[in-house]
Amino acid sequence: MPGEAIDRLIQTLARLPGLGPRSARRAVLVLLRRRAALLEPLRDALALVAETARDCPVCGNIDTTTPCAVCADPGRDAGLICVVRDVADLWALERTGSFRGRYHVLGGLLSALDGIGPDDLGLERLEARLGPDQVREIILALPATVEGQTTAHVVADRLERPGLIVSGLAHGVPLGSELDYLDDGTLNAALTARRPLQG
Amino acid sequence: MPGEAIDRLIQTLARLPGLGPRSARRAVLVLLRRRAALLEPLRDALALVAETARDCPVCGNIDTTTPCAVCADPGRDAGLICVVRDVADLWALERTGSFRGRYHVLGGLLSALDGIGPDDLGLERLEARLGPDQVREIILALPATVEGQTTAHVVADRLERPGLIVSGLAHGVPLGSELDYLDDGTLNAALTARRPLQG
Ligand SMILES: [Zn+2]
Ligand SMILES: [Zn+2]
Repeated sequence: MPGEAIDRLIQTLARLPGLGPRSARRAVLVLLRRRAALLEPLRDALALVAETARDCPVCGNIDTTTPCAVCADPGRDAGLICVVRDVADLWALERTGSFRGRYHVLGGLLSALDGIGPDDLGLERLEARLGPDQVREIILALPATVEGQTTAHVVADRLERPGLIVSGLAHGVPLGSELDYLDDGTLNAALTARRPLQG
Repeated sequence: MPGEAIDRLIQTLARLPGLGPRSARRAVLVLLRRRAALLEPLRDALALVAETARDCPVCGNIDTTTPCAVCADPGRDAGLICVVRDVADLWALERTGSFRGRYHVLGGLLSALDGIGPDDLGLERLEARLGPDQVREIILALPATVEGQTTAHVVADRLERPGLIVSGLAHGVPLGSELDYLDDGTLNAALTARRPLQG
């Protein structure tokens, strides 16, 4: 068996998503064989991130600058805020490269089971931005699940103000997907929201 | 997109086996959300291993002590040496808990393609142990592949000495496996090496 320090590294790695004990062991073996090329760069990258990563006090994104790069970018439209469940969803939207507004990260969804109520979603922080940033529109980019849509309704009610548009993502057929693999709800939504094609 | 330091961490993690760019991103998101519970322990475990991991000068195992825990354990039989391809195979044998001898790690197998010849397998180091440790038996625990068995033959020839037993692992049906899923070579080996059952 490997020594105690190596074993602790395997066990810590095994707690990451996508890595069980077996793949953590394989990963550590590769790290140990390639110490200069892999182990030391990974150690340095982790140390730097552990040193510098912070929750953005404005939007709840996690970044190594404060406020985060999105909030600090003067080219991003402060009047358009996209509300997301978590940083994973924020990154997914950023990867599209098509959203030029800013964000509010809820940090979770309403859940009686997990004891997450409206006060746990940082909504005061979001409301405090509405006036100063002259926010015109809030896009609720929340999961198309029961919890996601319940949360969207509660947030929409809470944000209701004259002149403020609160919108949600469109539902429909994902690009590239076969119709007969889709669930009935999605097909139904896609039918209901059907659009005229350009002639 | 995440900041540069976070991005470098994702890219470094993505080079580990079993983790692509997507799962590395998911892993980093979990690390960022659980900084005290996961990110900092992983940073500390990696730093400690990077600081202390060394190739054992005796057997080629990797450990945080020198010589490795196996070589340093006076309870292990120095007269019985198991030759393995790499540290992964050494760990696999150690997990069985049934081997009480010591090891020699070749660090690879003979391969004309990869330019690995007999001189790259540390055999002088192994031969130097034979006399001082009064080695009685060498077990060649090498993969049951063409390269593994070619390497086993070359190592066996090189180690041939009066009174020194050179053995190999038994081939046969893996425990728990169905016969009709096994390849012909394994079935053949299992038939040839058949043993009388206790009455
Ligand atoms: Zn921010
Ligand atoms: Zn050793």
